[in-house]
Amino acid sequence: MKQAAKVMTLADIARLAGVSESTASRALRDNPVINAQTRQKVQQIAADHQFKVNATARSLRTQKSHTIAVIILFDAKTQQAISDPFLLDILGVIADELTAKGYDMLLSTSKTTDKDWRSYYFDSKRADGLIVIGQGEHDARVDQLAAAGVPFVLWGAATGTEQYPVIGSDNRQGAQLAVAHLIKQGCKRIAFLGDIRHTEIEMRYLGYQDALRAAGIKPEPALQLNTDFTAQAGYLQTQQALFDQLASLDGIFAASDAIAMGAMKALLEHGIKVPQQVAIVGFDDIAMSAYCTPSLTTVKQDTHAGGQLLVAELLSRIDGGKAASQLLPVKLVDRQSSLRNST
Amino acid sequence: MKQAAKVMTLADIARLAGVSESTASRALRDNPVINAQTRQKVQQIAADHQFKVNATARSLRTQKSHTIAVIILFDAKTQQAISDPFLLDILGVIADELTAKGYDMLLSTSKTTDKDWRSYYFDSKRADGLIVIGQGEHDARVDQLAAAGVPFVLWGAATGTEQYPVIGSDNRQGAQLAVAHLIKQGCKRIAFLGDIRHTEIEMRYLGYQDALRAAGIKPEPALQLNTDFTAQAGYLQTQQALFDQLASLDGIFAASDAIAMGAMKALLEHGIKVPQQVAIVGFDDIAMSAYCTPSLTTVKQDTHAGGQLLVAELLSRIDGGKAASQLLPVKLVDRQSSLRNST
Repeated sequence: MKQAAKVMTLADIARLAGVSESTASRALRDNPVINAQTRQKVQQIAADHQFKVNATARSLRTQKSHTIAVIILFDAKTQQAISDPFLLDILGVIADELTAKGYDMLLSTSKTTDKDWRSYYFDSKRADGLIVIGQGEHDARVDQLAAAGVPFVLWGAATGTEQYPVIGSDNRQGAQLAVAHLIKQGCKRIAFLGDIRHTEIEMRYLGYQDALRAAGIKPEPALQLNTDFTAQAGYLQTQQALFDQLASLDGIFAASDAIAMGAMKALLEHGIKVPQQVAIVGFDDIAMSAYCTPSLTTVKQDTHAGGQLLVAELLSRIDGGKAASQLLPVKLVDRQSSLRNST
Repeated sequence: MKQAAKVMTLADIARLAGVSESTASRALRDNPVINAQTRQKVQQIAADHQFKVNATARSLRTQKSHTIAVIILFDAKTQQAISDPFLLDILGVIADELTAKGYDMLLSTSKTTDKDWRSYYFDSKRADGLIVIGQGEHDARVDQLAAAGVPFVLWGAATGTEQYPVIGSDNRQGAQLAVAHLIKQGCKRIAFLGDIRHTEIEMRYLGYQDALRAAGIKPEPALQLNTDFTAQAGYLQTQQALFDQLASLDGIFAASDAIAMGAMKALLEHGIKVPQQVAIVGFDDIAMSAYCTPSLTTVKQDTHAGGQLLVAELLSRIDGGKAASQLLPVKLVDRQSSLRNST
C-alpha cells in the first residue's frame, strides 16, 4: 500500500469546491469573471491540499506565456551595454507595469541574443510579445519582427518610415530647447557631442541645427563630434577638441548627461570656467545631474510615462488592437552649468 | 482538400534525417553528445521544413524551464528601487552569463512581486532557480526559499548565520581600506554616511570602526548618519550635518558613490574645500566617479567576477552540487577627493 499523499488534480479541487473544472481553473488564476467568494473558496481548497498550478502546463493549454521579452540593444560597434542610468530607470518602470498587468518579464541583451528573435521568443511561445529598447543603430532583426507580424514595440526615435510602433521622447524638440537656451546665454560656437549614427542622437543633432538656424547661426560640421554614450568618451573627445581648432568654443550640447559630465571634467581640468567660458547642457536628467559641480542643465525625458506607454501599447497589440507610434514631450531643466546671469 | 502545408513533427524530422527521435531532439538542442555532422544535418532539415521547437512543450517534457528568476530587492521602507548604477552593471553581467549557458533571465522586482516566491517561480516551473540581489534589509522570503530547498543564491553580505549561499564583496575590508586611507591623509573626525539597517552597509560600518580603532580613534556614534542610497540623501544629510555639531568634520566615508557625490555637492556649495578641509571616499567605483570634480576616491567592487560567480554557483546547485558563500576581494581606487598631498 502506498504511503505517499495522493497528488491532487484540478478535477479534485473542482469537485471539492462544487464547481466546474473551468470555473476552478479561472478561480485559481484569480480571474475576476468568477465572483470573489468562489475564487477565495477554490484558492483556499487548493492551498489546503498543496495544489500547485504548473505554469508551463497552463501555458501549453492557453497557448499564452504571459511573458514579455524585453531586449536591450547594444552598440554593434563596441559591443558594450548602453549603461546609462536612464536605462535602469525605464527598465524599472516596465518591470512594475508588466507585473501589475500579470505578465513576467524576460530580459535579454542583444549582445548575446544573436538569435532569430521571432523563432526564439515568439514561435517558441517563450513570450507573447517583445519590447525592444535601443538608442542604437538600426537593427535588421527589428524589421524581421515587423514583417512576421510579431507583436512588439520599440523605444527609440521614429523616423517616419517604420512599419512598426515606436515610442520615444521628442528628441528633436528637446535638443532645440537646449541649444536655444545656450544661444540665449550668449553662446555662438556650440559643439555637439554624440554619435549621430544612432537614430535618437541624429534627431537631437537635427534639433541642434534647428536652433542654430533659427538664431541665424550656420551649423559648422566640424563642431559635431562623434562620441559614445559614456562619461569617458565625453572627457576624451573634449580634451581632443581643446587641442584642436575648437579653442573658441563657448558652448557644448551633449547627447547624454554622462557625456556632458565627462566634457565638464575635461574643461575644468584645463582651467576653463563652466558656465562663464563654456556653458554645457546634457540630455536625460539622470539623478546625478543635479549633484555634480556645477550642477548640469539638461533635457528631462519622462521615463515613467514612457515605460507605462510601452507596456500599454504592446498589450493592446497582443489583444488584437493597433499600437501607435508616439512622441513624448520633454522639458528643459536649467541648472548651474549653463546659467551665466545667475549664480 | 486542405491547402496548408503539413505541420512537421519531431518524428518526421527524425525520419528524414535517418536518426532516432531522441537523437533528433538532442541535435535540435545542439547537444554536443551528438556529433557535429548529425547535429548540422538535423538542424538543416528542421530549418528547411520550418520546424519550430515549442519551448513550452519542451519544458513540460524535461520539467526544466531553462530560466532563472532574478529578483531585485527593494527598500521596504521607501519602496524605491536601489537605482545605483552598480545594479545595472551586475545585471548586465548576469544576463550575459545566463545566455551563454543557455538560460533565459526572468527579471522581477520585489516591489511588485509580493508573492510566495517558491510557489510562483519554482513550484510553477517558471524558473529552475533564483538569484536574489539585495543590498537591502533581511527579507523573510529568502529564509522561506532556503527552508523549502529551492536552488538560489543571494548577492549581498554574509553574516555567517545564513543557511544559504551568499556571494558578495568584502564590504568590511573595503571600508577598512577606505577609512585607513582617510586617516593616513590626516583625517581625525570622519563621518559615516549610510543606512546600517542594510546588512552590506552594516558590514561597511564595522570596517569603518575597525580602521578607527586600529588608529587609536574612538568611534563616535554621532558621526554615523543614516542615509539612503541616493545622491539626494547624501546632499541633504551633509547639509544637515554642517548645521549641526559636526562642523569639525575633516573626512567623510560614504556607503555608495552616489551618496558621496551628494555629500561633495553640499560641501562645495558651502565653500568647503575637498579634499583640503574635508576628504571624501565612496564605495562601488561607478563609471561617473572618475568624472566628477574633484574625482572621487572609492572602493571598487568586482561586478564582473560577482555576476559570473552568482551564475556558476546557482547552476552547480541546480545540477545537484553545493553552492558556497564567497567573499570577493575589493580594492581602493584613490583619486582627487581624498589625496591631500598630491595634485
